[in-house]
Amino acid sequence: MTAAAQMLATHPADAGGVDRDALVECIEACVACAQACTACADACLAEEMVTELRRCIRTNLNCADVCEATGRVLSRRTASDASLTRALLEACATACRACGDECGSHAEMHEHCRVCAEACRRCEQACRALLAALG
Amino acid sequence: MTAAAQMLATHPADAGGVDRDALVECIEACVACAQACTACADACLAEEMVTELRRCIRTNLNCADVCEATGRVLSRRTASDASLTRALLEACATACRACGDECGSHAEMHEHCRVCAEACRRCEQACRALLAALG
Amino acid sequence: MTAAAQMLATHPADAGGVDRDALVECIEACVACAQACTACADACLAEEMVTELRRCIRTNLNCADVCEATGRVLSRRTASDASLTRALLEACATACRACGDECGSHAEMHEHCRVCAEACRRCEQACRALLAALG
Amino acid sequence: MTAAAQMLATHPADAGGVDRDALVECIEACVACAQACTACADACLAEEMVTELRRCIRTNLNCADVCEATGRVLSRRTASDASLTRALLEACATACRACGDECGSHAEMHEHCRVCAEACRRCEQACRALLAALG
Repeated sequence: MTAAAQMLATHPADAGGVDRDALVECIEACVACAQACTACADACLAEEMVTELRRCIRTNLNCADVCEATGRVLSRRTASDASLTRALLEACATACRACGDECGSHAEMHEHCRVCAEACRRCEQACRALLAALG
Repeated sequence: MTAAAQMLATHPADAGGVDRDALVECIEACVACAQACTACADACLAEEMVTELRRCIRTNLNCADVCEATGRVLSRRTASDASLTRALLEACATACRACGDECGSHAEMHEHCRVCAEACRRCEQACRALLAALG
Repeated sequence: MTAAAQMLATHPADAGGVDRDALVECIEACVACAQACTACADACLAEEMVTELRRCIRTNLNCADVCEATGRVLSRRTASDASLTRALLEACATACRACGDECGSHAEMHEHCRVCAEACRRCEQACRALLAALG
Repeated sequence: MTAAAQMLATHPADAGGVDRDALVECIEACVACAQACTACADACLAEEMVTELRRCIRTNLNCADVCEATGRVLSRRTASDASLTRALLEACATACRACGDECGSHAEMHEHCRVCAEACRRCEQACRALLAALG
């Protein structure tokens, strides 16, 4: 069990009727994506062709911030707030879709963009899966 | 001019056709709200009646994280992404509505909750005003 | 009174024997600096001469993250931890010194760097003043 | 290879002469610790005996913020700044030491505190190992 899964399993509140696996996967995906996007933005910044990677850098920075906030909110199970959770998951999925597309467009040229795009796709899927599970 | 207003005025990109005043007000409201919510969560934690303030603490922590992410995304004007901006403003308004209501319910008993509720109302209004300006 | 000052004044814990003005100034400086650095990084990214602003962008991104964490920790007065506060203020002053110097080196060319350098200098001074006040 | 390891391996800059394994371990430890502390703070908040867990909650919130900032700064390899890295690693190790001790003191009573203490110990060790590697 990952630390995130252990933390959820040992929380005094139940998962609020939510699919626990979907919740853990989303937390982990958000946390991993935030780090990948932070690193990718920096890698793009170091590339010779940085002038063509402005949009990518900026999209990565936005995605990192949104994924981080989402991972944190999802980690809080006390008196869970479904309307905020849904709105934030929508924003996170939007950020990850945009970032996955943008990094994906540079994937053949830059390996770090390929890796980051994967992290974004995983996170987008996890957000949409959790949204569906929340009903 | 505040630092946030100066930063926006000196950015090489224009405000992307957005109402500059609405954008600056929202950035400043998000930044102030994030700090107020962090401080209020801690003040509630120190109160004797902390057992009755769990929901308030948790709502404050969520609001701080969402406002912070929103303030950051709004501060980035390069290749601005309207769909993410809208989704995040919706999430932020939702967080601030919930937090303003929750803190407001404790305002008569706890001054820090009264101050925080004001910050949340200001931020919720600023988010909704910017959403309207984005069209 | 600013919201940050009000929040500190209404906290059930005292300021822990700390110079309240120094604490409030530091919180406000951290919060303002974090936003300025986020905005400056983005403005630099949009500049034609972005290739010469890589270090500046990266320094801004680091400074934003450190200032944000410092502002948050300083906002928590419950069971205050002096050793962490000192260590973090040292890191923050270091980040602001580096960023103030870097942005300062581009100030004549880019107004946003001039504004940001001011925010960094203010924050560095506030961190050092608070460190001195902590004894 | 984890995503963090892949991102570092695909960065155009080298690791700056730093022990790559130590760097990856520290990034991963920081990211995992930040999430564990956010979750533990919330779990403690939900406990019946929350009044005895105030210090723990607050220490967790501080640790989460410092670990998050540290993970981000470590993820940026462009024009790496050794003095900031060292100062921040010191602060992070301090935060993780305090949090590991505090959570550890509640570990027998609360499983989430036991899990969190492990994450903090791992992170403290990783920070100190990387500090040693930086020389």
